[in-house]
Amino acid sequence: MSIKLVHGGDVYRHPNVLDFSTNTNPLGTPDSVMEAAARSMQNISRYPDVLEEKLIHRLAQYEQVPEEWLICGNGAAELIFSFVLANEPEKALIAAPTFAEYAQAVESVNCRIQWYEMTEGQDFRLTEEYLDALTPDLDLVCLCNPNNPTGITIDPALLTEILERCRENRTYVLLDECFQDFLDEPEKFSRKKELPDYPNLFILKAFTKRYAMPGLRLGYGICANEKILDRMHRVVQPWNVSVPAQAAGAAALDEEEYVRWSRKLVREERNFLKEGLKKAGFRVFDSEANYIFFKGPEDLKERALERNVLIRSCSNYHGLAEGYFRVAVRTHPENEKLLEVLSEAARSRQ
Amino acid sequence: MSIKLVHGGDVYRHPNVLDFSTNTNPLGTPDSVMEAAARSMQNISRYPDVLEEKLIHRLAQYEQVPEEWLICGNGAAELIFSFVLANEPEKALIAAPTFAEYAQAVESVNCRIQWYEMTEGQDFRLTEEYLDALTPDLDLVCLCNPNNPTGITIDPALLTEILERCRENRTYVLLDECFQDFLDEPEKFSRKKELPDYPNLFILKAFTKRYAMPGLRLGYGICANEKILDRMHRVVQPWNVSVPAQAAGAAALDEEEYVRWSRKLVREERNFLKEGLKKAGFRVFDSEANYIFFKGPEDLKERALERNVLIRSCSNYHGLAEGYFRVAVRTHPENEKLLEVLSEAARSRQ
Repeated sequence: MSIKLVHGGDVYRHPNVLDFSTNTNPLGTPDSVMEAAARSMQNISRYPDVLEEKLIHRLAQYEQVPEEWLICGNGAAELIFSFVLANEPEKALIAAPTFAEYAQAVESVNCRIQWYEMTEGQDFRLTEEYLDALTPDLDLVCLCNPNNPTGITIDPALLTEILERCRENRTYVLLDECFQDFLDEPEKFSRKKELPDYPNLFILKAFTKRYAMPGLRLGYGICANEKILDRMHRVVQPWNVSVPAQAAGAAALDEEEYVRWSRKLVREERNFLKEGLKKAGFRVFDSEANYIFFKGPEDLKERALERNVLIRSCSNYHGLAEGYFRVAVRTHPENEKLLEVLSEAARSRQ
Repeated sequence: MSIKLVHGGDVYRHPNVLDFSTNTNPLGTPDSVMEAAARSMQNISRYPDVLEEKLIHRLAQYEQVPEEWLICGNGAAELIFSFVLANEPEKALIAAPTFAEYAQAVESVNCRIQWYEMTEGQDFRLTEEYLDALTPDLDLVCLCNPNNPTGITIDPALLTEILERCRENRTYVLLDECFQDFLDEPEKFSRKKELPDYPNLFILKAFTKRYAMPGLRLGYGICANEKILDRMHRVVQPWNVSVPAQAAGAAALDEEEYVRWSRKLVREERNFLKEGLKKAGFRVFDSEANYIFFKGPEDLKERALERNVLIRSCSNYHGLAEGYFRVAVRTHPENEKLLEVLSEAARSRQ
């Protein structure tokens, strides 16, 4: 199988499915974002603005951080690679299961991976034991909060201990906050206000999830250590963020009502889906995000596909095996359809 | 100055100029390309196709090569970085002056650069002497044909000798053919048919220049060595080519008439501009591409800007100093305006 086919979202090989395998905003791309990007087609005969001035200016207002702390990328995924390439880690700690791109990026610079296994017995939560794994020989730790695919957050007090330990050890922390917008209270989780205290901390954010625009590729990082950002700029081309991505991004940041509404929808539908999945007999983990991680029969993905519903098998995540799945939280009628299909698949096996 | 501001095309800090500093197709983006990209906005709530199936299929037909030889990137520039990262050269030979991104990419993996200086005395042409520089300790050579910023091609017999020497030495060759579409007889220059003979050869091509779509970011590579391509896929994210770039690229490849017409326009206008620049007293080098490299007074860029004409100062190219410039070949009325402005600037100094 191609190295490129390790993720969900492969609607190109599965046309006409209802796609629960990608976990972007259930409201779909805002019209204003599509319109801004379509209007920008008038300007594609120009190179993108290498300084991304308009976008960075709006983003600094939105995040309430200095412009100098921001860096944009061709999707958040590109920033994972450029962060790693810029900082040349030799040994990285990755808490599994998690998003596959951390490992792929780390391997792209021949960095050794130390895996930390979160266990089902502990509901795939990070615990105090993780602190013992933070040895001084580590150059980098990657953490995803809430984690993907589980949707589980890191206890804030534990995360503070982690950041402090890593600062003492001069270990970089790549903290992926891409899914925080869908938490009930995101402001309780983001560490961006503490960035001046942690020169080793890089926070990753995405437009992809928040505004359901993965096709345009736009992510960003926030970091108070300008040396890191300068090094990152040196290892990528200057034109990495396209004209439509810059235009769409600036327009998206005005969509405050849309973000609030989607957070409310996700909260309601997350509970609805969790209850429904439990009733159907699956073991459901305690996601706080816009997707739900659960355990079911090994052939569940194939069975759902027979009914044109695509779910994410998590069997290719490091630390997981067959029988783990992730589904996105979508709109109510779509979620009802999902529950119907998965419940029937579960019943028919008994 | 930001590392990102080393190139031309900075129309964002110079609004309302006539831009001769970027060298894309003078006919501008084809309507069909803008329309295809705008239509694709309906699909940006999906991730891009990681296998780029439609685009790769059309591209293989267009280039008449197997699909397996193709790799797409977020602009050709991304492919320079991923080629270098995938192949981990320790010592690279770069013939200067040339496109700055080869050096930036090579430095991103801490590879040592051996500069080969082409000289004004030899009209910045690559000569037989270059063969002596092809020592067995080289892991990579970067060549641009026709070269940027000079527009000068490499003698085909010499290029064959270079490729053979590099194959013997197991030296990778990154051969940038991005500007070949604007040569009078491009088929005489491309080496893609010889790819099976050269497992060390990677050819770089771009949609950017041919279809004037730099804002969308789409480039590609052709290589018969699948191991190289596989390694390249491993060092970049799977979603690097956006939905609109894939849609626009597939549409662009139908624009055969546009490409023929632009080649004819460039041939005529290149000659017109060369003659005009010579008459104005500049030393003009013998470009065969869609841009012209010449020598003039050191303050020419600033003088042209006073009249809202932006030209590319080449003083920041390795191997060049103040007083070298590159201008794009544009449409006849635009080129007349350029000649008027530059001639006047030259006269007023005397």
